Amino acid sequence: MTTLSTSGGPDDDTPAIRRAVVIGCGLIGTSVALALRREGVRVALDDHDPRALAQAVSMGAGVALRRRARRADVVVIATPPSAVVSVLREAQSRGLGAVYTDVASAKARILAEAGPAGCDLTSYVPGHPMAGREVSGPAAARAGLFEGRTWAVCPHPDLSPHALRVACVLAAACGAEVTLLAPDAHDQVTAAVSHVPLVLSAALAGRFARAEPQALALAGTGLQDMTRIAASPVDMWRDILEHNAGSVASLLEDVASDLAQAVAALRAAGAPGRKAVAELLSQGNAGHARIVDACSARERRAQPAS
Amino acid sequence: MTTLSTSGGPDDDTPAIRRAVVIGCGLIGTSVALALRREGVRVALDDHDPRALAQAVSMGAGVALRRRARRADVVVIATPPSAVVSVLREAQSRGLGAVYTDVASAKARILAEAGPAGCDLTSYVPGHPMAGREVSGPAAARAGLFEGRTWAVCPHPDLSPHALRVACVLAAACGAEVTLLAPDAHDQVTAAVSHVPLVLSAALAGRFARAEPQALALAGTGLQDMTRIAASPVDMWRDILEHNAGSVASLLEDVASDLAQAVAALRAAGAPGRKAVAELLSQGNAGHARIVDACSARERRAQPAS
Repeated sequence: MTTLSTSGGPDDDTPAIRRAVVIGCGLIGTSVALALRREGVRVALDDHDPRALAQAVSMGAGVALRRRARRADVVVIATPPSAVVSVLREAQSRGLGAVYTDVASAKARILAEAGPAGCDLTSYVPGHPMAGREVSGPAAARAGLFEGRTWAVCPHPDLSPHALRVACVLAAACGAEVTLLAPDAHDQVTAAVSHVPLVLSAALAGRFARAEPQALALAGTGLQDMTRIAASPVDMWRDILEHNAGSVASLLEDVASDLAQAVAALRAAGAPGRKAVAELLSQGNAGHARIVDACSARERRAQPAS
Repeated sequence: MTTLSTSGGPDDDTPAIRRAVVIGCGLIGTSVALALRREGVRVALDDHDPRALAQAVSMGAGVALRRRARRADVVVIATPPSAVVSVLREAQSRGLGAVYTDVASAKARILAEAGPAGCDLTSYVPGHPMAGREVSGPAAARAGLFEGRTWAVCPHPDLSPHALRVACVLAAACGAEVTLLAPDAHDQVTAAVSHVPLVLSAALAGRFARAEPQALALAGTGLQDMTRIAASPVDMWRDILEHNAGSVASLLEDVASDLAQAVAALRAAGAPGRKAVAELLSQGNAGHARIVDACSARERRAQPAS
């Protein structure tokens, strides 16, 4: 059986993952399980929905978790954010694994609630693979979902160095690139790159929910691009946004303020208005270029020239 | 030589396009010229930039317009919006064609200014092929740019029925589907499906223009989708937005108001806030579904089962 480590030798202190438990057989959990199975890891699966569990098992993602399972090297909690703390506490009380991590896309509130709720923080590594899709559920899962993507791992003062290393090995085993970020910084960054774009997309798409058919006659690729992520699952995203409400609300206010400036510029007659509109568009060009650079640099690192 | 008409017979009153003039050898003008050349139309090209003209000619889009050219069946003005009225007036005074149309993505202001500027409105058909790209210039042009896309044609009280028919034949010859819309209605629809999405994309992308590198560490496909059109050419879009400033500003205010509601919902504690966030996301789902339906219905019409 292959053992996973960030380097090859059996003598160094890089931990190996031989057994894993994945709790939550949605898109992300099942994809993690499939990626680990591909690497020869023994995976046990759990889900409160027996249909999701059965589907993940039938896809080869692992076996159903038994009551008295052997202790795993890592337990991956792939539930919505609002379930992470209670699932973590129960998993730790059962002694399911040596290290615990999750995949929720907001981290600070979970970490803040986990200690008072009785969780052991030394073995809990907040994690977040950046690989969502507009679809959800185990049927959409695939082993390669995380290849070339970023996997945020969030160290905190109580965390043991061993647990941090295991979470990094897990991410690398799934083909992802690890980015270390403090939980608060993570939440600000995800608000900017993921949560606020989702709200903008939903707000734009929502204006067409009851529009006249004529209003859609000229819809094209630009509108399709801008509204693609508005198809994301409502319950999951309501939960995510609630867990990062402060950062998202602040940034949305900034964007609304930018839009108010754009409105004023469009209504201002003559050269000052034109200059302000051109400045907005130029900033957009510049920001687009930086986003493309960042994403393509990561793609190059993921696929080095052979 | 093939003649273009919406039906086949030589005896009906569908006009044929045998000769065309295209003024403005950017992405859209050169693509129109290439599409017409593919159908066997004789095309004469003009551009104030001799390099753009030479490039379009070298791509086989047509020949350079001569001083004493034979009168064309249609003259396509493919300049930025702010140049259309003066180019139209000059082209009409030279008697370049029987019918004139343009491709600007805002129509009401051009039409309102054309009459007082001395243009003949009976032969001027406001037009707008919905097929922009983030790139510009003749090098990006291709004959198939308009296939399966919508081409808005905007009748007005002064327009001759013959000129309207010629504009529809032109759009069909380029592979596009004609949508008839009054100029004001056109401008409201394009504000919603094109101009406001562009401003939103620019405002979002612009926030990353001077962001810390760490702020881009987690950028992924959602942000890339949402900022793709922010790469659009600044000068062209400043001109377009100025020509549709009223409709765009009003709609941007509506979107900013939606964002303010989202901010309030995110900050409201408990069930009411959660319900409002879920409602915003549900509306986004519903709007996304309608946009996808409208676009895929058009694609099905463009590619009927054989």
